[in-house]
Amino acid sequence: MAGIIVKPRARIFHGHDWVYASEIQKTFGNPEPGDVISLKDFRDRPLGTAIYNPDSQIVARRISRRKQKLEIEFFERRIQQAIDVRERAESVDINLCRMVWSESDALPGVILDRYGDHFVLQTLTLAMHQRKDIIIEAIIKLLEPKTIILRNDSPMLKAEGIEPEITLVHGENPGPFTVEANGVIFEVDLLDGQKTGLYLDQLEAHAAIANMAKGKRVLDVFCNQGGFALACAKAGAESVTAVDSSESAIAATLRNAELNGVEINAIKHNAFDFLKHCEDEYDLIILDPPSFTRNKKTLKDAMRGYKEIHLRGLKILARNGILSTFCCSHHATRELFLENVVSASVDAKCTLRLIQNHSQRLDHPILPGIPETEYLKGFTFELAPSR
Amino acid sequence: MAGIIVKPRARIFHGHDWVYASEIQKTFGNPEPGDVISLKDFRDRPLGTAIYNPDSQIVARRISRRKQKLEIEFFERRIQQAIDVRERAESVDINLCRMVWSESDALPGVILDRYGDHFVLQTLTLAMHQRKDIIIEAIIKLLEPKTIILRNDSPMLKAEGIEPEITLVHGENPGPFTVEANGVIFEVDLLDGQKTGLYLDQLEAHAAIANMAKGKRVLDVFCNQGGFALACAKAGAESVTAVDSSESAIAATLRNAELNGVEINAIKHNAFDFLKHCEDEYDLIILDPPSFTRNKKTLKDAMRGYKEIHLRGLKILARNGILSTFCCSHHATRELFLENVVSASVDAKCTLRLIQNHSQRLDHPILPGIPETEYLKGFTFELAPSR
Repeated sequence: MAGIIVKPRARIFHGHDWVYASEIQKTFGNPEPGDVISLKDFRDRPLGTAIYNPDSQIVARRISRRKQKLEIEFFERRIQQAIDVRERAESVDINLCRMVWSESDALPGVILDRYGDHFVLQTLTLAMHQRKDIIIEAIIKLLEPKTIILRNDSPMLKAEGIEPEITLVHGENPGPFTVEANGVIFEVDLLDGQKTGLYLDQLEAHAAIANMAKGKRVLDVFCNQGGFALACAKAGAESVTAVDSSESAIAATLRNAELNGVEINAIKHNAFDFLKHCEDEYDLIILDPPSFTRNKKTLKDAMRGYKEIHLRGLKILARNGILSTFCCSHHATRELFLENVVSASVDAKCTLRLIQNHSQRLDHPILPGIPETEYLKGFTFELAPSR
Repeated sequence: MAGIIVKPRARIFHGHDWVYASEIQKTFGNPEPGDVISLKDFRDRPLGTAIYNPDSQIVARRISRRKQKLEIEFFERRIQQAIDVRERAESVDINLCRMVWSESDALPGVILDRYGDHFVLQTLTLAMHQRKDIIIEAIIKLLEPKTIILRNDSPMLKAEGIEPEITLVHGENPGPFTVEANGVIFEVDLLDGQKTGLYLDQLEAHAAIANMAKGKRVLDVFCNQGGFALACAKAGAESVTAVDSSESAIAATLRNAELNGVEINAIKHNAFDFLKHCEDEYDLIILDPPSFTRNKKTLKDAMRGYKEIHLRGLKILARNGILSTFCCSHHATRELFLENVVSASVDAKCTLRLIQNHSQRLDHPILPGIPETEYLKGFTFELAPSR
């Protein structure tokens, strides 16, 4: 079998499964893009089996520490293990979850989301994309889906040389339908929707924040389809304001509000501007922006953005108010993000008490050996009495 | 009023409340140890009021951002604010909790633990110790305790020049009595006990881990009075083994097991040796050692200790097993501690999935502006299937 000899001190020796171009000592046997290859250390000892794509920055992604073929039995075993993980996790609704998540489930590039009987598949690495037919076969066997939609529209695809496509690959198009998460109804449209599906990783946080919302004036900034706003309204908030710059997000929020029989003041507005000119006071403010950075280079700018929304958020927070802030960029560490909030609190001349840590839900498993699998972090603070 | 001019760039300008000796530009007005002083910046702008002790490394600890006298109204206000924080926190049993926690409640050096009608007070800064009578007066007014025991036996006292003492300062000695936490009964003896009280900061983690214990073979290493072991046994563990090197800890664990009508195999043994020679396999292992380091200097040795117990723990963990590990040293950051576990998992040739983050309970509030208030971190991992 063709393969790669990995340089000493590469991350794969520290629990990771990736080999970067810069970590390759030698490639042997002329592997083709998408091939299954073997990995060896500089003393010729085997490190396992990987998928290969020389066009990607991540040239090899390990799929097993042993010899392994990419055959249907392999996919069935891995997908079954992924199902087991979700079934054991109390916080995960097994009918509305990310059923397979790439490296975390030792299926690099394969993402499978479940919305009841309907599934959305992504194949984001070349090797997995080439084998999508047997992956679909394994999914059908194990999960008996009514629908599988291949929804390859991630910006990651370009690096792997895969053409974007959104295709119905099994069953019939269900059209728009509703799902329920923590008692909140959402409309989803997996094939045609501008906003496909939900942010499944945040469903646990929605419930945790809603748990504090009763009787409060709530502001949900960067509301998207209204996850936090709807959960808070359902939980008995006094009022809920939701802000997003996207027209379709606001439309979705309002449609979902109607479905749930709750009232949400949904405002299409740039979040920074909204916070800057806001003259109202809120008891509970949620800041859940899209990632301000996808790489290390723009991290400094991103942190300036976070500081800005933190400071403005603190300025319109009522006495004993609660601020929940989330960061979905792997590059901003927990420490950096926490320092950012502290720095804003110094400028706002207030003292914060940390009352909750948030992370991605367990259907997005974190493997500490692959730090990139931990990306979502959030904090909930309570404003301490002025001292 | 006497006071201190603080150097530029000191931590107090970044949200902290401490002034270290090295951060003092000038002391004016000849303050005495234990005095209330004013803090100013290098441009003579007021930074608030602090307590003063030139014999401590931390010379000034801010008690307010305004002018403030240490009078009974101040203590009543601060203690009432601390009570409010606990009453709002769902996870805190208001009858069994740390009611006041030092800097976190803007009462530096004052710690008050509640065990039903009985209270344990610590006064660990000179200024607060000098004013203990009005602190006690405020506690009596607000909380109507049957007992207050002043239990000044912390190693911190020496740095402040306070003599250790354990004294009944209000009411009568209740002798040994029982308290209940999450359905588990513990015996405490606040005045005479070798092991006074409980680790209140861990009560939430006990419950979280017990929630996973049903039907499992559980090992609680560094068990102390048996907090984790008892909670797991009550929750229906198949078997529970508890290890501690302290004779009194083992005696307390066995006494508590009897009180709760559960069986615990409590072993007096050095934890490192026990783990090294253990030939049994466990489904759930808890590692909750005392702090291996109290300062930055010994951090490297401490991390070696953690690596050792992590590696040995992983080696006796059963298939799909769960490992919970805790670190109560502020100096070992979350990142460092997580890396330590990953490094052990590489040596043990296994893959871990992070399934829970743990922190101190909310009766030990974290002020991110004072990073020292965040000290307890824990992780629960699930052993992933071999890949």
